[in-house]
Parts: sequence; structure tokens; C-alpha cells
Amino acid sequence: MERGNATVGDLDKARGLVWAAGPADFPQLPESIEWVQLSSAGIEEFFAAGVIDHHPDVQFTSAAAIFAPTVAEHALALLLAGVRYLPEQILADSWRQQEFLPHIGTLRGSTVTIIGAGGIGRALIPMLAALGAHVIAVSRSGRPVPGAVETLPVNRLGEIWSRTDHVVVAAPATPATKHLIGAEELAALRSTSWVINIARGSLIDTDALVDALASNSIGGAGLDVTDPEPLPDGHPLWALPNAIVTPHDSNPPQRRVAAFADHVAANVARFSSGQDLIAKVDRNSGY
Amino acid sequence: MERGNATVGDLDKARGLVWAAGPADFPQLPESIEWVQLSSAGIEEFFAAGVIDHHPDVQFTSAAAIFAPTVAEHALALLLAGVRYLPEQILADSWRQQEFLPHIGTLRGSTVTIIGAGGIGRALIPMLAALGAHVIAVSRSGRPVPGAVETLPVNRLGEIWSRTDHVVVAAPATPATKHLIGAEELAALRSTSWVINIARGSLIDTDALVDALASNSIGGAGLDVTDPEPLPDGHPLWALPNAIVTPHDSNPPQRRVAAFADHVAANVARFSSGQDLIAKVDRNSGY
Repeated sequence: MERGNATVGDLDKARGLVWAAGPADFPQLPESIEWVQLSSAGIEEFFAAGVIDHHPDVQFTSAAAIFAPTVAEHALALLLAGVRYLPEQILADSWRQQEFLPHIGTLRGSTVTIIGAGGIGRALIPMLAALGAHVIAVSRSGRPVPGAVETLPVNRLGEIWSRTDHVVVAAPATPATKHLIGAEELAALRSTSWVINIARGSLIDTDALVDALASNSIGGAGLDVTDPEPLPDGHPLWALPNAIVTPHDSNPPQRRVAAFADHVAANVARFSSGQDLIAKVDRNSGY
Repeated sequence: MERGNATVGDLDKARGLVWAAGPADFPQLPESIEWVQLSSAGIEEFFAAGVIDHHPDVQFTSAAAIFAPTVAEHALALLLAGVRYLPEQILADSWRQQEFLPHIGTLRGSTVTIIGAGGIGRALIPMLAALGAHVIAVSRSGRPVPGAVETLPVNRLGEIWSRTDHVVVAAPATPATKHLIGAEELAALRSTSWVINIARGSLIDTDALVDALASNSIGGAGLDVTDPEPLPDGHPLWALPNAIVTPHDSNPPQRRVAAFADHVAANVARFSSGQDLIAKVDRNSGY
């Protein structure tokens, strides 16, 4: 290990292990091992395979939230592209200044609602704050999220649609979040509102979104995830000028390696100096 | 005045004047006036017309730098669109994930050089910092600019091209800055580098830029200003897939009114409470 003030050595003398594979080949750990860093954000397979229960005295850490900044950056890129009317401008082949000027919006002073206050949502807040946007966070509990001017519990989500300028979907896909945004919610948004989805396609009713985009009842949509996914050839979203579709590429492989390396280095440094580790696995909650 | 804790009244009883027109019709000021807020950033015409010299006891304030945040936001939108490969993705009409993934970059951990440390450059720094970019500022003096990890004087600009990931041009157009970026500078940049220009077209050698874009020797260019401007129909920049041209619309009229209103409200509040005003005109330096 060249970073984090540790050395790489044999497993049977090591205090920590960085395991970058799945649970299948997980080794028998010597007693010297106090800590295991896993390389995925979701580690349900390690629980299922008994790896974690089999080592009750080992502190496991996951890669939870380490990819959040790159996904949040993608969300911001999509939102800014929408607010700055870039899709139409990128397609243009002549100087249409007078036509475009009225469509140039700004995030400064705008209200952006982030649905979901996990790693991605929390990473996005300071980016939006730096642009002068007011962030409303929506979480299950409604406990105040740092940097948000207001945090609402999800049971008050209905208040959002008429109050916000833009919406970023960053919540997990569960039966409860399916079609969280449908025709009614879209109808309550503004004609300049952009809806960004970097979470899962199922959270938005695609047919209702297509209708809203086609009728310009909202400003546009920036989608890194779709329903269905992959989005089939000929789907209306491909042709709508106010829809930006990126094919689930907000967290590219080359970024994952770099982000994981940063995470390992940070945890190695913490482990060496006896500090609390990042992304500790909680045996009770299962993640 | 509904904001800033002041009331609107007759000129002959007022202490302050907000003048939203040019120097031609500027009124004879009563002795009660202590402060005049002008509505343009450059106020050379008021000096030329003698308005400012004619009122030696009045503090004039300009609208300098109040439009900087919206232009900086535009610069960030262009840079993020480039780094996240949005132009090609916006043009796509099928799910080309494997093709696009290798092109998705990030500003996190990247080095962005801002040439020019005026209002726009300074407004852009915290936006980039929030995304985890390291900002190098280039100014005439080289005096450290807040938020930049490094500030270089313009006579060391030559060191930048091989060190930076991306470049944002935010310097004034002067004889000294014409073609600041030409073939040699572009050749030293990386194949993933984006060049953003929200200043004046003349700072970049357009022909050299077209060559660099056509050969993919740089990642791309985001241009809100061009040379010539307006960019004529049929110009190669319109057709290059790694060029984003927005027709000098980063500071739209509807934003100017809102930004000026914010500025006036802030200065009225400061004036009422005896605080130092923002954007005071310096009679000696002429701006």
C-alpha cells in the first residue's frame, strides 16, 4: 500500500484485508485480521453467504456512498444542461440568440427538491448550494439533512410539487417508491421545471413523463435511468427535444476504481491511527 | 422600495438615487443626495459625460460583477456538459452505454485553470470547488485568489497548458489577450481537455481551435462567445460534435433585472444602516 501509511503483506500477518471480489472465494481469515474492506456498496450477498456472520470479531466496511459524488455530479450536469437550454443549443446550426435568450434559466435563487437523502442526495446538496440554489430534501424520517434549507418526511412529499422549481430523484427503488412521480405530480410542476432521475427508472411513470414533455407542461427531463431499461430504439424519449437520456453511465467503471482507491486509502489511514472507519457494516441492519 | 428597508420618494427629498438609464438624461442632483446607484457594470460613459466629476460629494456605485454568477453558472454548465459527454448523448437515439461509458469524465480531482480573476472567475471558483476540482487562477498580478489552490501571474501562463485538465477563459478582451489560446497552447492540452470561453471570442484563435477539435487533440470546446460573432451559418464549429456553441446568451435580460434588483436591495440595506456599499466607483481608477 503506497497510500494511507500502511504496508502490504501476507494475509497471515495482516491486521486488515481489502477484498475486491465477491463472497464466493472469500478466504478463511487468520486471527490477526481485525478489519475487512469490501468493494461493493451493497453487501447483501456477503450476508447471504454467511461471510459476515462467520467472522463475528471482524469489522467489515463496505463501499457504500463512495460512488455518490460522481452520480451527484452527473445529476448536476443534467440539471444545468436543462436549465441552460443546452439540448436545443447543441442541436442548433445557426446563431439563434433572440430565440434562445428567454429560455436561459438559472439555479441561483431557485428551489431544488432532492427526493432521497442517501449518499447521492447528500453529495448533491453542497454542489447546488454553491450555485445559490435552495435545496429541499425529502427523506423517510424528515430529520434535518445538513445543507438543506428544509427537510420533509416522505409523507409530506405532496407539498413539494407546487413549491419547487426542479426535482432530483435520488431514492431507492422499492414497492413504495414505484411511480412516485406520475401524471398528477408532473401536472403540479412548473412549465420550466426539470425532473432529473439518477436513481431507478421505476420511480417515474414513463408514459406520464412522455406526455408532460410532449405537451411542454414541464421544462424537461434528464434521465440516467429509464423504465424500461435499456430504453428501446424508437421510444418517444429519444426524440423529445426536452429529454436528455444518458444510458445509465453516471458511474463509469474507470471512476469506480479511482473512487474505491480513495476510499481504501482513507480507511487505511483511519485504521492505522485508530480512528472510526467509514462505511462500517452494521450486523443488525444488514447493510 | 419594498426591499432593503427604504422608502421611495421624490428626488428633492431623497438621500439616494437609483439611476437605471444612461448618462444623457442624468438629472441635476439636489444636495440631499449622498449616493447614486448606476445600472451598468462598465460606467466609462458616465465618466466621459462628466456626470461623476460634476458630483464630487456623491458616492456612485456601479453594477460591476453582479452578473458574474449567472455567467459563471453558464461556464460550469458548458464544462460539465463536456466532461459528462452530453453533446454526443443528446444526439443519440439508441442506448449506446458501452460506447459512452469510457468517455464519462469527472471534475472531481481534476485541475481547472481559470484565466482571469475578475467577477466571473471568482464566482466560478466556489462552484468548481464544491465539485471537488482544484482551481488554478491566472491573474495579472498573481496575487492569491480566494479559493484557488494556486494563483499564477499571467506571465507564467505558459506553464498551465501541460498541467491542467480544463481551461476556462474569463479574461477581458485587450490587445494583450488576443489569441491567448492558439495552436501551440491547444497542442499542449490533453485529449480529454475542455476549453470554455464565456469572455470574448478574440481570446481564442478560432481556426486553431477548429483544427484541434476536428483532430480530437482536445476533448472539446464550450463557447458562449465566438470570433467572428455572430458565428456565420456553415461555420465548421456548428458541425463539430465536440463543440458546444451558445449564442452569447449566458447573461439573459430576464436575469439582469433580477440580479440588479438584488444588488440595489443589498446596497439600500447597507446605505440605510451605514455599511460600506458594494461596487463603489473609484474616481481615480475610472471604474
